[in-house]
Amino acid sequence: MADKFYSQRNLRFLLYEVLRAESLTEYEYYSDHDSGTFDLTLETAARIARETLFPYLEAMDQNPPDYVDSVVKVHPAVKPFLQACGEGGWICAGSPYELEGQQLPIMLTSAVRFIFMAANYSASAFLILTSGAGRLIESFGTEELAETYLPKMYSGHWQGTMALTEPQAGSSLADVKTQAVPTEEGYYLLKGEKIFISAADHDAVDNVVHLLLARIEGAPAGVQGISLFVVPKLRPRQDGSLEPNDVNTLGIYHKLGYRGSPIAQLSFGDRGDCRAYLVGEPHKGLSYMFQMMNESRLEVGVGAAAIASAAFYASLQYAKERPQGRKPGTKDPTLPQVPIIEHADVRRMLLFQRAVVEGALGLILQCAKYADLERVGEGEVKERATLLLNLLTPVAKSYPSEMGVVSVSQGLQILGGYGYCDEFPLQQHYRDMRIHPIHEGTTGIQAITLLGRNVRAEKGRAFQVYLKEVERAVAEAGDIPDLAPYAERLEQALVTLRDVTSKVLASAGDVGEEVFLADATLYLELFGLVTIGWQWLLQGIVATRALAESVAEIESAFYRGKWATLRYFFHYELPKTAPLARRLCETDGLTVRLERAWFDD
Amino acid sequence: MADKFYSQRNLRFLLYEVLRAESLTEYEYYSDHDSGTFDLTLETAARIARETLFPYLEAMDQNPPDYVDSVVKVHPAVKPFLQACGEGGWICAGSPYELEGQQLPIMLTSAVRFIFMAANYSASAFLILTSGAGRLIESFGTEELAETYLPKMYSGHWQGTMALTEPQAGSSLADVKTQAVPTEEGYYLLKGEKIFISAADHDAVDNVVHLLLARIEGAPAGVQGISLFVVPKLRPRQDGSLEPNDVNTLGIYHKLGYRGSPIAQLSFGDRGDCRAYLVGEPHKGLSYMFQMMNESRLEVGVGAAAIASAAFYASLQYAKERPQGRKPGTKDPTLPQVPIIEHADVRRMLLFQRAVVEGALGLILQCAKYADLERVGEGEVKERATLLLNLLTPVAKSYPSEMGVVSVSQGLQILGGYGYCDEFPLQQHYRDMRIHPIHEGTTGIQAITLLGRNVRAEKGRAFQVYLKEVERAVAEAGDIPDLAPYAERLEQALVTLRDVTSKVLASAGDVGEEVFLADATLYLELFGLVTIGWQWLLQGIVATRALAESVAEIESAFYRGKWATLRYFFHYELPKTAPLARRLCETDGLTVRLERAWFDD
Repeated sequence: MADKFYSQRNLRFLLYEVLRAESLTEYEYYSDHDSGTFDLTLETAARIARETLFPYLEAMDQNPPDYVDSVVKVHPAVKPFLQACGEGGWICAGSPYELEGQQLPIMLTSAVRFIFMAANYSASAFLILTSGAGRLIESFGTEELAETYLPKMYSGHWQGTMALTEPQAGSSLADVKTQAVPTEEGYYLLKGEKIFISAADHDAVDNVVHLLLARIEGAPAGVQGISLFVVPKLRPRQDGSLEPNDVNTLGIYHKLGYRGSPIAQLSFGDRGDCRAYLVGEPHKGLSYMFQMMNESRLEVGVGAAAIASAAFYASLQYAKERPQGRKPGTKDPTLPQVPIIEHADVRRMLLFQRAVVEGALGLILQCAKYADLERVGEGEVKERATLLLNLLTPVAKSYPSEMGVVSVSQGLQILGGYGYCDEFPLQQHYRDMRIHPIHEGTTGIQAITLLGRNVRAEKGRAFQVYLKEVERAVAEAGDIPDLAPYAERLEQALVTLRDVTSKVLASAGDVGEEVFLADATLYLELFGLVTIGWQWLLQGIVATRALAESVAEIESAFYRGKWATLRYFFHYELPKTAPLARRLCETDGLTVRLERAWFDD
Repeated sequence: MADKFYSQRNLRFLLYEVLRAESLTEYEYYSDHDSGTFDLTLETAARIARETLFPYLEAMDQNPPDYVDSVVKVHPAVKPFLQACGEGGWICAGSPYELEGQQLPIMLTSAVRFIFMAANYSASAFLILTSGAGRLIESFGTEELAETYLPKMYSGHWQGTMALTEPQAGSSLADVKTQAVPTEEGYYLLKGEKIFISAADHDAVDNVVHLLLARIEGAPAGVQGISLFVVPKLRPRQDGSLEPNDVNTLGIYHKLGYRGSPIAQLSFGDRGDCRAYLVGEPHKGLSYMFQMMNESRLEVGVGAAAIASAAFYASLQYAKERPQGRKPGTKDPTLPQVPIIEHADVRRMLLFQRAVVEGALGLILQCAKYADLERVGEGEVKERATLLLNLLTPVAKSYPSEMGVVSVSQGLQILGGYGYCDEFPLQQHYRDMRIHPIHEGTTGIQAITLLGRNVRAEKGRAFQVYLKEVERAVAEAGDIPDLAPYAERLEQALVTLRDVTSKVLASAGDVGEEVFLADATLYLELFGLVTIGWQWLLQGIVATRALAESVAEIESAFYRGKWATLRYFFHYELPKTAPLARRLCETDGLTVRLERAWFDD
């Protein structure tokens, strides 16, 4: 089994050398931190990942949660992990001091999550869900809600969830129909059903706290009538003891991957006694939930990059160790076989994986930095950060997810028949990865968000800011002779993106909303390629400068590896923008103007 | 659960309308057949698939073979299926009458396999392996071998296998080291180990017959020293009874998919008593095996297209039935939701799947027709068929396999969260499909075969014949006004392929074999896109002519569906040739000139 699942060197490269994470400590909110506390955070996270997560990767997959006698039993490794996270302050590491948090930058909490998820995605999900649910209460809940729930959640004793999906309301949240009826006691009585709820019920915690979307009786139809509630599985009495809250687990799903985490179907209020506590104002639930959803979307990107990272290092190790065949031109069968990393096609697959993993991680940490600057910055800095973060969230969710699937598949391919067998981890990574283009908004939904909303918002203001940001990197790289040809390639791709965007937006009025959005997924793919090209150019700038100075041999090899991967991306991946752009300029409604009967045969 | 796994209408369209299968009956060998016997064959195969294969698809996946007390137990559905196939003459349907075969054209046996594999890939594998092993004995074995083994194999009582891979010899068959020592009795004594052998041992048959590669003691190193043997698990005594042949099952693999079929690790001659019977001449084993391997590669293509077909119809059914969301521009939440097939992005994914399935199946049946003409044709007809069949085999294996993986993934995506759950078949298709780019020669091996061998052979003669074949379709389509724009697009892509091929071949001498072959996988992908474009143009010609006549409404819908899919392919898929061609013209050895240390970080 592979023993490396991510590169600490690369993480430090991105955080410190490319994105200058320590610059955040100039802001008051983060001023207690310095590169020392950051390093300590990364090292401790690495230890936890190595000791409490990675060893159970396979076992949690092989022994998925079981639903017996009304109890969802999860793997015994989950409880000690959650408690260790609670004790170590990892669940609320980004929260303010007054909530027992450490005011750690989002860049660092994202890096920590990357480490955890690369070690064991399913186990990490428990932590991340509680953390996200907690932040929602922090942001929008009353002080009473915060006092009642957060200490238990942040200490790892209570699980948090995000309960949105219903049988008839998956991608279409407008159709949520779980109903909340107000009572004179202040709480609401809830009735409804939720499906596909991660970590919705399990025996590694004492209670579960659902952050749930429902419709207050008489609320308007659609998304304007959705409110956010806290709905505990067991509700605290005045004396602090717990009593059942009529939250019922109907069953858990058996699924392709992500098997360590129980995904359940729940019903609420079967006996008319499910109490729900309103968070914030009525009917504003979706906007609150979107805060969490946008964070969750970035976390899906982190998780996808993390699984792709684990798959990359597993296939890299195999490629270094497995002898098979000889180089073309040296076919003498009496010579020893070479390790397969010597074969160009295997190297191509390794470079592809690395380009995806490190490009995606760069983008994610870039977005995390924007999230930090949105939190602590002021004026133009804050505004730009908000614009870029919102614009890029669908890309940071989808590129790692979609390309992560392909990347893990290439990793599996490197192992050949062994990649298909349970004795190697690739087949698990392949299964675990496949959830990412689906959950927290499918790729199709992300695409409509990007093209239909984000790029159009405020007359394209965020998109203009994005263009300038990429142009700045192009200009900087253009001044470095070795990088200039790549700066030029990216500039061309950026012009293509800009022109396609103008053309498509301009056509929207003529062709109608449906045709305008028909190829949004291709637009998202195009946007992703340009954005990851930008990230690689940023990494290339740092690597080139480092190589220009005299560095130790091992460091030089690291930077040359960056260069090789950059070249791979620009020669093999970025050119894929061309056919996407070509199609996007055809607004013939090919997929819209079809008759149902054509699919009948 | 979906109840349709392939389209009989489409199969008939390809066999009869596009490829004119009945023209084969003009040849003496096939002269007893007519469209009536073909139809009967297809209908009977459909019934067998529906009744004895499809119902066990999920059960065979959920209850994979078990290795207990030295017995490999497979699902109870396997035995009756194999016996039904034996009784119905399906295992040797293509064999000559004198061997109890039906002299059925390969086009038809391929169509039958497609139907079986779409219903249940794992179960079909048992049949196909026996069939392939039998044909090897037919072609190269002595009469005695044929008499001893074929009746039992073709009646479904004995299993056939293909035993090539060893721990140190997977892609590199030159490194096979299983040894065969001649004896005075005529047989050889075998010693060695084989891994990843499909259907290598199981309780649904009375015996297993391995067609096995080994090296006769003292044979030259490399592929020139490999011989082919028949090695039975139990060897027949003079009186017809069976005795153990020192063939030992070491274990079976637990794998991602394709779970109904046992893949085993075997050792031979642990007690020095494993008898092997030479097939054909010494040291010529690899060339014999290549006959079977080339057939097997086409069969992998069939299997991949078949699984993609089952996935397509499952996701199509879901898309028609699942209501979710509303059309862009009609967001009124009080209106009912629409079935997701109304969404352009879902239609795009459905058209993609259909383009892959029907394009791939077209190519496979086209290759099957070449195989028929190679068998029964004469002179130029036979020669052209052989050239095209050999040239296209890597494409017919790889395009369905590689694009099938993507296609099934898109099918899964259409189901969203449900696609990830065991209650729908998509997750199984996703797992089953993933073996295809690996077994019978990985995609990388196919690519090297295509570019390094097939395209170069005889100064590119086969490639020239291929260009003419595609040009003929382009010319024919160019005369049909509606099709002319697509003919032009394909012509451009063909010119690109021709120019890239010339350029890459011309550079081989300068850059060396290793750089020349470095991007062979991209070349294979480019070749695949052009070839499937050709297939779609051929289908388009027929569909357009049919629509020009007055046809019944349901028939018109079928042909219009063909048209929509053709348009999809030409607008979304064929343009992907451009970046591939661009990269292939860069002979910078990017993936060759790397240092190992760059992967160390």
